[in-house]
Amino acid sequence: MKANDAYQWLVQHQTDTAYLFSTAELAAWDQRTYIPAQGHAHRSKQIETLARLMHQRGTDPQINDRLQEVESSAFLHEASPKVRANIRMWRRDYDRQVKIPEKLASEIAGASSAGESVWESAMQENDWDSFFPHLEKLLSLSREKAECLGYANEPYDALLDEYEMGLTATFLSSMFEELQHPLVALLRKIQDSAVKPKHSVLHGDFPVSKQKQVCVSLVEAIGYSLKSGRIDESMHPFSVGIGPGDSRITTRYNPEYLGSGIFGCLHEAGHSLYELGLPKAHFGTPAGIFASIGVHESQSRLWENQVGRSLAFWKFARPVLDDAFSSVANASMDDLVLSVNEVKPGLIRVEADEVTYNLHVMLRFELERALFKREIDPAELPEVWSTKMEQLLGIRPLTVKEGAMQDVHWSAGMFGYFPTYSLGNLYAAQLFAAANRDLGDLDEQFGKGEFSELLGWLRQKVHQKGQCLSPIELIRNATGELPTSKYFLEYCQTKYSKLYQL
Amino acid sequence: MKANDAYQWLVQHQTDTAYLFSTAELAAWDQRTYIPAQGHAHRSKQIETLARLMHQRGTDPQINDRLQEVESSAFLHEASPKVRANIRMWRRDYDRQVKIPEKLASEIAGASSAGESVWESAMQENDWDSFFPHLEKLLSLSREKAECLGYANEPYDALLDEYEMGLTATFLSSMFEELQHPLVALLRKIQDSAVKPKHSVLHGDFPVSKQKQVCVSLVEAIGYSLKSGRIDESMHPFSVGIGPGDSRITTRYNPEYLGSGIFGCLHEAGHSLYELGLPKAHFGTPAGIFASIGVHESQSRLWENQVGRSLAFWKFARPVLDDAFSSVANASMDDLVLSVNEVKPGLIRVEADEVTYNLHVMLRFELERALFKREIDPAELPEVWSTKMEQLLGIRPLTVKEGAMQDVHWSAGMFGYFPTYSLGNLYAAQLFAAANRDLGDLDEQFGKGEFSELLGWLRQKVHQKGQCLSPIELIRNATGELPTSKYFLEYCQTKYSKLYQL
Repeated sequence: MKANDAYQWLVQHQTDTAYLFSTAELAAWDQRTYIPAQGHAHRSKQIETLARLMHQRGTDPQINDRLQEVESSAFLHEASPKVRANIRMWRRDYDRQVKIPEKLASEIAGASSAGESVWESAMQENDWDSFFPHLEKLLSLSREKAECLGYANEPYDALLDEYEMGLTATFLSSMFEELQHPLVALLRKIQDSAVKPKHSVLHGDFPVSKQKQVCVSLVEAIGYSLKSGRIDESMHPFSVGIGPGDSRITTRYNPEYLGSGIFGCLHEAGHSLYELGLPKAHFGTPAGIFASIGVHESQSRLWENQVGRSLAFWKFARPVLDDAFSSVANASMDDLVLSVNEVKPGLIRVEADEVTYNLHVMLRFELERALFKREIDPAELPEVWSTKMEQLLGIRPLTVKEGAMQDVHWSAGMFGYFPTYSLGNLYAAQLFAAANRDLGDLDEQFGKGEFSELLGWLRQKVHQKGQCLSPIELIRNATGELPTSKYFLEYCQTKYSKLYQL
Repeated sequence: MKANDAYQWLVQHQTDTAYLFSTAELAAWDQRTYIPAQGHAHRSKQIETLARLMHQRGTDPQINDRLQEVESSAFLHEASPKVRANIRMWRRDYDRQVKIPEKLASEIAGASSAGESVWESAMQENDWDSFFPHLEKLLSLSREKAECLGYANEPYDALLDEYEMGLTATFLSSMFEELQHPLVALLRKIQDSAVKPKHSVLHGDFPVSKQKQVCVSLVEAIGYSLKSGRIDESMHPFSVGIGPGDSRITTRYNPEYLGSGIFGCLHEAGHSLYELGLPKAHFGTPAGIFASIGVHESQSRLWENQVGRSLAFWKFARPVLDDAFSSVANASMDDLVLSVNEVKPGLIRVEADEVTYNLHVMLRFELERALFKREIDPAELPEVWSTKMEQLLGIRPLTVKEGAMQDVHWSAGMFGYFPTYSLGNLYAAQLFAAANRDLGDLDEQFGKGEFSELLGWLRQKVHQKGQCLSPIELIRNATGELPTSKYFLEYCQTKYSKLYQL
């Protein structure tokens, strides 16, 4: 019974911390949506304070005492998988957090907050010089953090592990090697194809108020209800899980391009469907928390791409748009589907198509890895970036805001995050292939606007698992295979060969 | 130096708690504005958790240790008034909080939360029976709390003291005695007057979108900027101080009555101007916190009534409304000003005019006092309420939602809160009279839409003081006199004699 009491103490302590985290998430949502201009300074300090209080709670030595009590008792062996997952993940988190001194944690929080706000304006103005000292500082703090956390092969591994448990640079290196040549070859063929999307289908005049209505219809169709969410506008689209029954998304509508709003909404709704599908009764404990950043990204990419850019989806979606937008109504179905799947080398990751997207991520992975190996000087980043981009995609950024400064991640010290985007793409294709095997012809359902079977499958195989399985186990459990790039490459080959008549 | 270290520890500890409180305020704002329907259950638990964590922090024995260190040292005597105020108020808060066992604090939080949500629907349906058990529970918990806190004369005093330091039932009893007869006499004269407001000026068709524009113009004129605030809609209007540079208001627009939106906004903007005027550098310590609930209410009432219902204000405001609303454009200035000051006995406190408002409060004060003296049975409340209302105002509620169940306060266990509304009215009149003495002819400025001198005066005399003075000292310091009902009665006599040609 003593071990049981210790376990109950841990549940209470960690759930209380999760409620704090939930308020920090709400504060971050508000910061990007409705906060008045002069409220930002207070908000930064508020979020920093919450981070410090959470770090204090997360490194409370009582956690270690209670964990030891549970770990050394028979209680653990008789426990359910959920309870065992909780113990395992609490141990991992505690051991990681205590390795980072409070001073360093707080310095990182401060430097990230400062870096992000400098980046926000410096990026607009192509001002690498004022951003660079922040980048250097964040790199140096991240190196310090990696040393505190420890690693087997290289410091970068310690950072990767934070976003995707067990992920290593060696693994990523071979994964990107598998991807690079087939994707570049596919890209070349597509560029040589005579088939070209009609520009006028998605580019033109699309009033924001109409886009909003369409987006609500589409996300509600795939199962995201405004009873447990909201759609607001923000500069950078995001999804946030406030808690059970409340996961919100934002998007950015471009009145001259229809793709941003719709695919932004489908992507973020995919994230929110995951949050809303987590086991509610386990809120605040690992059994009720998403498996990893990579798995999270698989849910957004699956709904955005495997579903949202499919011919079957547009059979359903087209009538929803027809009333609102004449360019869609006037296009043939072939032209419409080709337009939402246009492949074209571009400078900006978030605007990249499925074929080139992973190449953008690979570039960042290679640069990050080289930075942490001290193989390149951070001052050279803009130049190295441009050269690599030209090698990979044949285009060269003319400004640093289209190059090394385009993403927020480095300004917030999130080194090691980018690779999870590619994992998400791979997991999405692998999960979708398995769902199709298990459920039969999903296309027919999609064409009728029915997505609940797929959502139910994802809930059962992914969402309801929380952190009971590691990301790798979760994928294997759901698909029968270890994570592999095979399904993603097959998906791209099949889909784009058909679309571009290769 | 040891006492100085102890003081710095206290500043840090209490400011951290204030940041938590600030997130709880944000969570409450969101709960009443943008939360999706299915997010409420999580939100209640989140707010309860924050309340519990704040209570734990507020009763941390280290607070007592550090306070003792400071209190017994020379540090305190050499300290600035702000530092002395911090020590004094931290001591008061600590001593009060430790008197309440964590279990009771948590029970009260839970019962309030439950009571408020039951009330919300029961009130709509006139359903006293389902509300009553919650009321009984909250009364019993409040009695227990009063016993824990202690009191000199009667249990009710312990509850009053929570909202207005040092306030007693005996004081309130004589205050209401001073108010009752002059106000009732004035009311009779007004009712006998041949002068009657024209119904059509404020009642008619007022599109909400136009009302919104007008409200923004009016609150911005008095100094409330949307750069440090927002105006949203909610069922019950409120103001919330998130922190320096961020204090938001809500209102409720009635498309058939112009008064609700405009005076709601002016009232809540008055509250927010106080929050925004507090010394920013002292955020989170008593030197940066509002003086009392009564003083807070004085700021909202002053801007709503002394300013917003004055002839001078409408000289400025009328052209702002003329473009939007023809009934205003077509009314004479006399009719307009009479309409915004219509005196008429009504059943609902929040809709009451300046003459009858305090009688509504007096009724609640007498009932609360009698409840805590066990002179009346809570089951009899609806009946006793109706009888008293008939005696005071000559009208009798036909339903309990227009009677004993009309306000949210009892459902949230806030016994002792109502009297602060009357204190606010008295303080507002007294402060406004003093400002007029100090600043000369404010009417001329108001007529030109200039309110910054008055706001500057209030900032200096009230807002910037934080809790450095007790409410009573603050009023005496600002006006040269102890709080008195004299100015409020004079204000009513003068204003309404003129308006109604008595």
